[in-house]
Amino acid sequence: MVASPAARPDAIRRHNLALVLGHIHRDGALTRAELTQRLRVSRSTMGALVADLLELGLVGEVVPNGGSSVGRPSHVVGPHDRGPYVVAVDIDVTHVVTAAIGLGGDVLARQLVPTGPAASEPETAARIVVESVERVSRATGRSAPPLTVGVSVPGTVDLESGHIAVAPNLEWHDIAFGALLTDALPEHTRVRIGNDADLAVFAEHLRGAARGFDDVVYLLGRTGVGAGIVVDGRPLRGYDGYAGEIGHNVIDSSGPPCHCGKHGCTETYIGEGALLARAGRPLPPTDEAVSRFFTDARSGDASAVGAVRDVAEPLGRTIGTLVNTLNPQRVLLGGTLSHMLDLARPEIEAAVSHYAVETPGRSVELIQPAFGTDSPLLGAAELAFADLLSDPLIAGG
Amino acid sequence: MVASPAARPDAIRRHNLALVLGHIHRDGALTRAELTQRLRVSRSTMGALVADLLELGLVGEVVPNGGSSVGRPSHVVGPHDRGPYVVAVDIDVTHVVTAAIGLGGDVLARQLVPTGPAASEPETAARIVVESVERVSRATGRSAPPLTVGVSVPGTVDLESGHIAVAPNLEWHDIAFGALLTDALPEHTRVRIGNDADLAVFAEHLRGAARGFDDVVYLLGRTGVGAGIVVDGRPLRGYDGYAGEIGHNVIDSSGPPCHCGKHGCTETYIGEGALLARAGRPLPPTDEAVSRFFTDARSGDASAVGAVRDVAEPLGRTIGTLVNTLNPQRVLLGGTLSHMLDLARPEIEAAVSHYAVETPGRSVELIQPAFGTDSPLLGAAELAFADLLSDPLIAGG
Repeated sequence: MVASPAARPDAIRRHNLALVLGHIHRDGALTRAELTQRLRVSRSTMGALVADLLELGLVGEVVPNGGSSVGRPSHVVGPHDRGPYVVAVDIDVTHVVTAAIGLGGDVLARQLVPTGPAASEPETAARIVVESVERVSRATGRSAPPLTVGVSVPGTVDLESGHIAVAPNLEWHDIAFGALLTDALPEHTRVRIGNDADLAVFAEHLRGAARGFDDVVYLLGRTGVGAGIVVDGRPLRGYDGYAGEIGHNVIDSSGPPCHCGKHGCTETYIGEGALLARAGRPLPPTDEAVSRFFTDARSGDASAVGAVRDVAEPLGRTIGTLVNTLNPQRVLLGGTLSHMLDLARPEIEAAVSHYAVETPGRSVELIQPAFGTDSPLLGAAELAFADLLSDPLIAGG
Repeated sequence: MVASPAARPDAIRRHNLALVLGHIHRDGALTRAELTQRLRVSRSTMGALVADLLELGLVGEVVPNGGSSVGRPSHVVGPHDRGPYVVAVDIDVTHVVTAAIGLGGDVLARQLVPTGPAASEPETAARIVVESVERVSRATGRSAPPLTVGVSVPGTVDLESGHIAVAPNLEWHDIAFGALLTDALPEHTRVRIGNDADLAVFAEHLRGAARGFDDVVYLLGRTGVGAGIVVDGRPLRGYDGYAGEIGHNVIDSSGPPCHCGKHGCTETYIGEGALLARAGRPLPPTDEAVSRFFTDARSGDASAVGAVRDVAEPLGRTIGTLVNTLNPQRVLLGGTLSHMLDLARPEIEAAVSHYAVETPGRSVELIQPAFGTDSPLLGAAELAFADLLSDPLIAGG
């Protein structure tokens, strides 16, 4: 009996398949010639690799002028348009966003469920996730279930088990959320859970505004505040995986009370609640109220403009502190903070200059994420794709 | 002509020589059997490697019961007692400490020159270094000059050029200190310069209290305050090499004025000046005044004890902030802060617990450095040995 190449691949072939699929996933359709050049392999080796990926149903080939000829050798290799997909879930205080996402990063279907403190019980969140996964999966029109469900949560997560140590703004403490979801989802559905800011920087580093930058901080501000950190090209997770929990670093211990029990936490100065409170608007923040706030600020509403200006200083201070500590090349401001950068860049940069140690020759860029408020969601998708991308043969079952 | 093995070594041999020398440098004398086991090579390969190192004058062999038989195959391989040495220099605000250090870390000779603001011109510091290097080199009784001079400075340094961007407490800005030293030292003396906290954690991670720990912060408090950070077993340097500059992170913007122009910098709360000031003692700090302060605190002097207690809170807060940001397994408290840990561990730990986000399952140990106040000095020695340890053949000229 002769084993097929796919059945008994050697480690190199497995590795090369992962490389080819990774290039296509990150960069979209590529010609065989481009792939051959990127991997520095022979044309025949690339031909065999593409044939494997075609057989696995992961990629398709199309002719450049639009005609499609899936399964036949042709010019351009791209993600298969009926290939596997994942479901990414972004659980935050104010919403659960769920999206079915294909190889290459295409959002095939998406749904937002507004939530609030009332819906923030773990069981309630799990129920919303299960229903949303079912709905967006159905909306893809593909018969297969999602490969994996990737979930972003605003808290400290054990990547292996999906156990959440603490998600302060959800008031979750010591919750076996991975197990809860796995039990609630259809059998054999794999679940991967990560921290929102960690996933945000993961997505942006892989294929967004931090691509090609090895020292990056993603400062995520929504109801809560956290940082996703890349050092020397690798995620900074810390010993327990809990690095980047900067939202409760104290800016001023005589500052406003924080739900965590301390006073003057970073979150109380630059979180969404701080913006709304300074503009005299009702709390807690909802997606709608935050969106209206920024619309008003852009159109010159005095209280909103004043609040933006008030928050620029502690935001710049927070960034300055991160710059002193981590010396990143780029700081991405995500979530609400991305709008802050639009509206008050000079004020924020002035505060960064004040608080960061003046160091000749050092420069740091403040930039907006490529994926806007979707960075955590797309990071959850990347987390869900990670197994397939490291070993495409698992698509063969 | 047959090339000698030493003249045309292959990459593997070079690599293995580096491994053997590294083990001996870190752990002292080891038997051939231990070395053979650690490297997982054959006895004959180890025999050849040890022979090379003997020939290079880097190691010696001794018989276990005390007799010495350098150059003849024997039981225990250790650093050669007339082998190469480096000179390490710790430039701080209050002193310049210089030490000749042999392979294995033995301090062969050492000298302390008290300094102060008056002596902190770069040219003055360079002159002290040159004289001290000459003196401790002579004191070794070895005829050869030091292999390399490694220098620790309390500032941001470009590791390649030794250019100092800023050393706030020395008031050095944009100083080509590497070039200055190279010009002033005897011709062909190699100079390597690093940041004090970075070097401190380097030494402790390599062979001290952080050995075997992959996520570590070394919080160094002297006149200034800085952090040396190891993440995932590797130094966190940042994009420009300036990470860990936390001394000027602001604890309270309405706090005491700092020489940097801001108010309430971490340094103004936990630096040596803060301790002395709170005890009503004259400034600026000198080594002697700081030493007297801690002697008094240990013997119950009320003003000193009160100052220690006052400083414990912001110290714990600083550590808590680092824990939230970096999630280290161990935090080493060095310089003056090492004494603080002796005197006020419960108060410091209480403040860490208050300021670090409460995370079930996370624990962080506060510990004292293995090398006391010498961590930066010994880190400078390791920096100076780095070239030889990565390629022992350079000892052959």
